[in-house]
Parts: sequence; C-alpha cells; structure tokens
Amino acid sequence: MKQGILYGVGIGPGDPELLTLKAVRVLREADVIAVPDKGSGRRLALEIVGEHAAGKPLLSCAAPMTRDAQVLSAAYDKNAEEVCALLEQGKNVAFITLGDPTVYSTYFYIHDRVRARGYEARVVPGVPSFCAAAARLGKPLCLGSRRLLVVPGSHGGVDDCLEADANLVFMKTGRSLEELRGRLREHSLKASAVVNCGMADEQVYPDLEELEGSDYFTLILVDRDGENKAEQ
Amino acid sequence: MKQGILYGVGIGPGDPELLTLKAVRVLREADVIAVPDKGSGRRLALEIVGEHAAGKPLLSCAAPMTRDAQVLSAAYDKNAEEVCALLEQGKNVAFITLGDPTVYSTYFYIHDRVRARGYEARVVPGVPSFCAAAARLGKPLCLGSRRLLVVPGSHGGVDDCLEADANLVFMKTGRSLEELRGRLREHSLKASAVVNCGMADEQVYPDLEELEGSDYFTLILVDRDGENKAEQ
Repeated sequence: MKQGILYGVGIGPGDPELLTLKAVRVLREADVIAVPDKGSGRRLALEIVGEHAAGKPLLSCAAPMTRDAQVLSAAYDKNAEEVCALLEQGKNVAFITLGDPTVYSTYFYIHDRVRARGYEARVVPGVPSFCAAAARLGKPLCLGSRRLLVVPGSHGGVDDCLEADANLVFMKTGRSLEELRGRLREHSLKASAVVNCGMADEQVYPDLEELEGSDYFTLILVDRDGENKAEQ
Repeated sequence: MKQGILYGVGIGPGDPELLTLKAVRVLREADVIAVPDKGSGRRLALEIVGEHAAGKPLLSCAAPMTRDAQVLSAAYDKNAEEVCALLEQGKNVAFITLGDPTVYSTYFYIHDRVRARGYEARVVPGVPSFCAAAARLGKPLCLGSRRLLVVPGSHGGVDDCLEADANLVFMKTGRSLEELRGRLREHSLKASAVVNCGMADEQVYPDLEELEGSDYFTLILVDRDGENKAEQ
C-alpha cells in the first residue's frame, strides 16, 4: 500500500480568512487532522480551521507547556509514532499549526521525527503573526535597507536586541512584557503592540504605553525609522 | 458619495495557491486592481492573481528600478494621486504586492501618501517569501530561543549580519551573492538557497554551494543550529 504524507499546515495567526487556498485544499483532502493540544481544554487551531476540517477524524498531539527537554522529547516521540502509524495505513495527515510552520512552531519536532522514520513530510507556509500585526497597525515591518530582528519570548535578555541596528519584533512576550517595556523606555524607543492578533479579542495599541496587563500572545513591534519612514 | 478604500494586498511569493481567502475576496470585490510596473514589460503580480482579477480595470503604478530618491518620490506621488482620484469616485482599489505588504514592499510609500490625503487604506497580509522558501527546504527558519535576522539586498555589508547571534535570511541578494558566499565560507557557515520561490522556474538548493549564477529573487537562509536542531 502507498504510504501517506504528513503535511505541516500553517493556518495563519487567527483570522480564518487568512488561511491560504493551499491550506484549505490540503485540509479538505486530508484523511486525518492532527491538532496540537496544550492541555488547556481549548484547541485554538481547530477553531480557526472550522468547517475545512469538519467531520474529519482528529489526532490529538500532546504539546505540554514545559521546558523539560525529556518530557517534551517523549511527547514528540509519541506524536510521531501515532502519525507514522496513520501514514503506514496510507492516510494523509494534516498537522495544523498557528501562523507559519517554520517560525517557532513545534511542528518541526514532529516533521523531523517522521522523516527520520522514512516517511514523506511537506510544509504548507502560512501568514506569520508579525505580518498580520503590522498589517493591523497599518505600518511596515521593514523598508529599504533596514533589517528586521525577530525575537522569541524565550530569548534570554533584551539588551542586545535593543542595541541591534534593526527593526524589532518581540513574539509571545507574556510575563517578560514589563521588563521589556522598562528597557524600551530606557532606550527611548517607541513601540506598538497587538494582543491576540486576528482573534475575536484582538487589541491593537499603536503606542505600547497604552497597553495594560499582558497576555501570552502579545506581539511588540519597534520601528527605528519612526512615523515618517514611508514618506520618501 | 462614499469614498472608496485602498487595500494593500499581499499575494504571497509566487504560487497562486498561496493567496489567502481574504486576498481572493478583496480582489474579487475591488473595482480597480492597481499593479506595480517596474518597466520590464512583465507584471508578475498580475500573473499570480490570474483569474481573481480577470476583467477588472487596471491601474498601472510605475515603480522605477532606481535608488534616486527624487525620481522615486515623484513616481509614488503620481501613483497616490491616481489612486485617490479613484477613491474619490467611490471605487475600491486593490494594490497587489508580492509576498507580504509589510516586508520590504513599495506599497507603503503609496499607503502613507493616500492616508495623508485623508483617505482610508487597509493592509491584507500575505505569506512572505522567506516562509515559503523555508517550507520548500523543509527546514525551520527559527526554533526555541533562537532569533531570526532578515537582511534586505540593499543593506550595506554582511559582516555584522554574520556575527549576529541569530538565524539569517538574506533577501533579493542579486549581484551581492558572490560576496555573501565568500563571507559565509570565511565564517564556516552553511547556507541554503531558493531561487524564484513558488514560481514556475523555482530552484531549491539545500546547499548554497550547488547554486551557480545569481538572480534578483535569490533567498539565502543560514541556520546556526544545523541539521539536528529539531531532534530534541
């Protein structure tokens, strides 16, 4: 029997209209939808794809919220085994992932394991959250010769980011938001923020100073060229 | 009469299936499609959107291939005036742009001018070329706590990029490709390349050393964690 194929499908940051035509096709053609499950009881990715996955068998892939490498590795091994069992039956599996699969997604931990076991895995790119956040703010991420530095929430320290000659994106700042805000003030850098970009409870702050509290899905953008960059 | 709205629509890097559902809807609802025209005789963005723009009136927007700020500014002023004249007639205009509008797109030079004249402009995000290139290579752009630095072809010098503690994307390297390749060798950094990502003549090089010649749309990816990064 012909083996199935694993597809890592980027579904964009939250707005169901930001799925690509290719993502929709791959989801509709898939035999099984694999869904990351952080154990919160809510499977956000499944809500976003909605009707395109309706009626399909689901494979729940535990993605524990821990930094314990052994616990994570065991979870990814189990996910990969379950995916490969389906591929062996000739079934195509679409693993759905928020944003783009190549940008800080746990999908690649499954992708590489599945390939190492001799199966085919393909990636369907999606719109990353930082592009959608900049779109909502009506601002470019980067223009001309300016570089762009993307910083994940787990990167230690922010000083070497703030000193970089580049525009900045801080992703999933969560609990480190207050420290980051203090450092931005010290460096006299103006920043914008988007919380839960593309979701029902999205909040847009052209000026970070207006944001109160913090959320796991808070994106911070720093534009070194300020307001007039596009007025060439 | 109600004024029209300008939409900056990201159409992805080349594969027509990488348009989002939102891009398709906005194109189908638009009264006029604005198309960047570099004067090469080929309007790539129009080829990519294909049927979704079929039969619509087109507004050709000159985007001269020069770094002369005065020439560029005059061209953008003229584009903005022509767009605003349509908005004043109540027409919605969709300006199509390769990749994502917030990532090194000339769209924002029009966007800001149109807003400065008192009209509404909205951005529809798209899949950036670097996400599609990483997808084709089957590799993550960034994982875990690793940062990502995106470098445009017009950035002067590459040394401070190669020394950055981050994975790297070099966009539109064009004529600077040979210099970049030499520096990567000096730094013992392995790189991958994708030429004309998502287009009919796409070429994928997991090892940059196998690429001969160069092209304007050559994307170079450098992954500091090497082959085994996802094997946690």
